[in-house]
Formats: sequence, structure tokens, C-alpha cells
Amino acid sequence: MADRKSDRQVGIIGSGLIGHSFAMLYAAAGYRVRMYDIKPEQIQHALFIIDDQLQHLAKNGLLRGKLTIKEQRSLITETNDFTECVKDAFFIQECVNEGLELKREVHSQIDSICRKDAIISSSTSTLVPSLISEGLTNKNRFIVCHPTNPPFYAPLVEVIPAPWTDPEVVFTTKELMTEIGQVPVLVKKEMEIDGFVFNRIQYAIVGECWRLYEEGVMSAEDIDKVMSEGLGRRYAFMGPLEVTYLNADGLLVFGDLYRETLYRVQCSFGPPKKMEGPTLEKIHNEIAARIPLDKLYERRKWRDIRLAHLQKLKNELDESHS
Amino acid sequence: MADRKSDRQVGIIGSGLIGHSFAMLYAAAGYRVRMYDIKPEQIQHALFIIDDQLQHLAKNGLLRGKLTIKEQRSLITETNDFTECVKDAFFIQECVNEGLELKREVHSQIDSICRKDAIISSSTSTLVPSLISEGLTNKNRFIVCHPTNPPFYAPLVEVIPAPWTDPEVVFTTKELMTEIGQVPVLVKKEMEIDGFVFNRIQYAIVGECWRLYEEGVMSAEDIDKVMSEGLGRRYAFMGPLEVTYLNADGLLVFGDLYRETLYRVQCSFGPPKKMEGPTLEKIHNEIAARIPLDKLYERRKWRDIRLAHLQKLKNELDESHS
Repeated sequence: MADRKSDRQVGIIGSGLIGHSFAMLYAAAGYRVRMYDIKPEQIQHALFIIDDQLQHLAKNGLLRGKLTIKEQRSLITETNDFTECVKDAFFIQECVNEGLELKREVHSQIDSICRKDAIISSSTSTLVPSLISEGLTNKNRFIVCHPTNPPFYAPLVEVIPAPWTDPEVVFTTKELMTEIGQVPVLVKKEMEIDGFVFNRIQYAIVGECWRLYEEGVMSAEDIDKVMSEGLGRRYAFMGPLEVTYLNADGLLVFGDLYRETLYRVQCSFGPPKKMEGPTLEKIHNEIAARIPLDKLYERRKWRDIRLAHLQKLKNELDESHS
Repeated sequence: MADRKSDRQVGIIGSGLIGHSFAMLYAAAGYRVRMYDIKPEQIQHALFIIDDQLQHLAKNGLLRGKLTIKEQRSLITETNDFTECVKDAFFIQECVNEGLELKREVHSQIDSICRKDAIISSSTSTLVPSLISEGLTNKNRFIVCHPTNPPFYAPLVEVIPAPWTDPEVVFTTKELMTEIGQVPVLVKKEMEIDGFVFNRIQYAIVGECWRLYEEGVMSAEDIDKVMSEGLGRRYAFMGPLEVTYLNADGLLVFGDLYRETLYRVQCSFGPPKKMEGPTLEKIHNEIAARIPLDKLYERRKWRDIRLAHLQKLKNELDESHS
């Protein structure tokens, strides 16, 4: 591998939200990025979004890394040639649509042309790594890096090795994620069911919200406020286990005080409900009255500017040892 | 009722964390507060914490309302006389320890001496309002206001009427909570099981985290990061239903794309686990290695300063229409 980072190439397959966000993250850290997409109009749209986002970040003093906009932008090149994207890359991040057949096909193509020392990563949010990689020659260099949406503004990345992934690949991937400003967490083993940790927690939340709405306990807007004005304030800084620890004087005390209450409430959750039918329509309509579908882009920008400021706030508070 | 707010008295029963936080919230909004506790040393400790917190807030430019520290502080009076706390109050906030018998006893005492037009509120986090209030003469003026911990830094308040609570009491309580800077949400009906909405969502989260830890999928520290570096960043600004809406192009599209995945994952959650045994000890020890029990006060301050800055950030962004 070359010494200069800008000589080290990352290959991004797929230029949708996850793909172009990863491209920005690598470029901000000084890596050269080749971003591939099968659709020329999609990749042009991605480049437009990248330019817009970089301007937006710079204007708000939120640009990452030490490079200027121009320098970061110049590190990203688009290509419609799959081989050109993959063959010289030391790290390949596949970001195509979710779907086992598609992922397997793309990884089979990568497998036949990538460098022997390349790390091959998938952004899948639900498919276990062994299912995608079992047939590959380089399956020992395959790993899942599942980012948060939007990756540029919420740094968590779930790193999930297959049973046959080399330990060195796990180590290097975690180091690389940290270097580009993300926060890697390790899913230590594949579960029998898909979902990893991030989505399992998220789906537990959505499941209970759904039931409470359906049973007429609370409006959708108020349910959302329970999180954004209450629970979620704490979760921006600490996870559920630490919250529990701090709410009593440690977990042992918490267990003694609340064990039976938690158990009783958890036993009352009832079976999962499918997101369909009148409840789906009612919740959709309630949110759409506040955020119409033609204002989604503006609302995502509203979200992203807040997430970027939160990141900056967290950094500043940590640096000042507050 | 008198016109001047400082002539209007709020009675706080119990001077623990919830009690003295409510005292600060009412004083910051200009109300006169009588804070009662059965234990003189507890109330002196509460006054010490209030002074410390006010100084801390002022130093960091985070003081609430328009009054100076001195003015806010002068509005709070302690008393060891239950009647003095209750009899002239237009709003009574009971903040004694959780426990049905204790709450019923305290509310029975309030009932016999309070003003006929007073609103009587309990801070209970789990006990349904009808259970506490069924025997009271003034049960039509009883309501639950369950705050977030810490109330001064996370504004959500769950407002839960009993079936016999006057609609006017619900309305006035929500208005008062808004006036003192909190964000009320309405629990529209009592559930058969305790927990309200805040804790039901929280317990769904803790339950799934527990299982994932126990099955060896992820360390406690990494599970917490899944929230604080990922999910929780979004939840500081928007609830789980809006997150879902924004993650696809609305809920209808989300349902079509992910309905089956969510259902499959939710079906795999398995029965609740009790917070006990080796898992409890292991998680406790893992967190205690990072946050020793003798550093809890410092860590809570660490949390509170972040929550206060987050509140300020949200206000600034909303005001600048970012």
C-alpha cells in the first residue's frame, strides 16, 4: 500500500444516500474515492447532493476534517466502469439496494477482480454476512459495515464479521471507521434472525409505539414527543443501560427497586402487529399533515443540520471536559 | 385567584430529585413554591442542591426564565408543616416515593385540607391515577403529571387523567406545564397494566438490550453506543414514528418495503428476562468500571450539562428557523 492516503483508493458501489455519504466521509479523511453506479443519472444526482451538502456544511462551520471543500471534492471521482471502481481499491464499500440475490451477485463480481489484500464490506442493514459471502473466494476478507442513516451525521457503524472473517479484517475495519470519524461497534456473532442490534432495538421501539397508538392510548405526535422531548434527550448522550444505571444508584439497586415492575410491563407487550391497514394509514396521515410528502427533502435537511450541530456540541463539551 | 403569579402558591410534597426539580421549574416561571418534606435533613439537602444547580446554570448561561437567581431562590420556601404547604396552593404536586399505600395516604391528607378549586397532581411513574384517587372527595380534580428524570433538563411530562378527572383540570394542567417550560403529552386512557407510555417504550428498549447482552451478541458499552452514537442522535430531535416516515418516503412506502422484516424481527424477541442473576452483575460491573458508584454525582452533572446545552441548541435552531 502506498503511504500517502490520497494514493489509497476506496471503491464505493452504489451512489444512493448511503453510498454518497460514505464517499464524503472517506474524502473528508483524505482518501481517494471511486464511486460507481449502474445508472449515470443517479451518479450525477449524487454528485449534485455532495456539492450541496459540502456547501451547506461549510456555511454552518460543520465541515469535517482538515481539507477544504475543493480538496475533498477533488478526491471523489465517479465512474460507470465497475472494474475501475474495484480493482485498485484497498477497501470496497458495497451500497446497493437491500436484497440477498442482488448483494450476492455484486459480491461475486467484486470477488473476481478485487485485490487479494482488499477488504470487502457490505452496508446491508439486515442480511447476515455469512449469507452474502458463503460462496466467495475471498470470504475471509468480507465484513458488514452497517451505518446509521444519515451516515454523515450519526456516526455509529455496526461491524459484523462472518464466522470466517479474518480477525485482522475486523481490526483494520474498526480502525478505518474510527479514522473517518465514525464510531464502530462490534456485533460479536451472527444471530439466527436478521436485524443486527441497531434495528432490533429500533423495531422494539416502533413495535410498542404501534400498539399504544392502535389501542388509542396516545396520538402519533405525542408518542413522538415522548422520545424527542423526553427519552431521546438522554439517549443523545448515553445508552439505555447507562440511563438505567444512573436512574438508581447502579444496576444492582435498580434491579432491586424495579425488577418486578419491568418484568410485569414487558410481559404485557403482546404479539407484534404488522405495519398495515387502517393504523398505517392513520399514522401516515397524521404525520403527513405536519410534514407533507413534498417537503421530505426540507425536513431531512432540518434533521441533518440538527444532527451536525449535536455532533459539534458533543465534541466541544468533551474537549472542554464539561 | 390573585393576579400576580408570585401570589399564587404551588405546594410540593416531597423534596427529593423530582420534588426539588419541580420547585425550581415553578420558581423560574415566577410562582411561589412551598416545598414540604417529612425529614428536615432531606429538605436542607434539597435547598443545597437547588442553590448549587442555580449557580451552575447561571455560570453556563442556562438559567431559565427572566428572574435572577436571587429572585428565583426567594420564591422557594421550605416547610415541615404539611397544612401550610397544601392549604393555600392552587396546584399541588405530590413527589413522595413510589408505592400505592404511601401515595393513597398522602392524597387522603391533601384531600381533607386543600382548596376546593385546587388541582392535585401526582408524579407517579407507574401507578394508574384511578388507583390512587378512587377514594378521594376531590377525585375529579386529581391528575398524574409524570416528568422525565431529570425534569429540569428533559421537558417531557406525561399527563394522565383518571376516568373521573374534569376536562378543565386536564386543560389547565397542560397549560401550566407548558407555561413552566415543560412539554405535556396526553395519555388518553389508563391502561390495564401500569407503566404509561414513557416507561413502556423505555422498558421495551431495555428488554431487548438485555437479551442481546445475555446472548453474547454485543458488550454493554457497545450496546449503549448503538443508542448514543446512532439511534439516540435522531431521537433527540424526532420520535420513532417520524424517523420511520423519513427513512422511506412516508409510512405507506416504509410499510411496503419493510413490513415483513419488522414483523419477522419482532416475532423473534422472545419472552422477557428478569433483571437479576449473573447478567445483572456482569452489566453492572462493566458500567461500574467506567463510572464507579462514588462518581455518580459527577456523572449526573456530566449528563445534566449536556441536556441543558441540547435544550439551548434546540431553542436556538428553532428560533433561527434552521
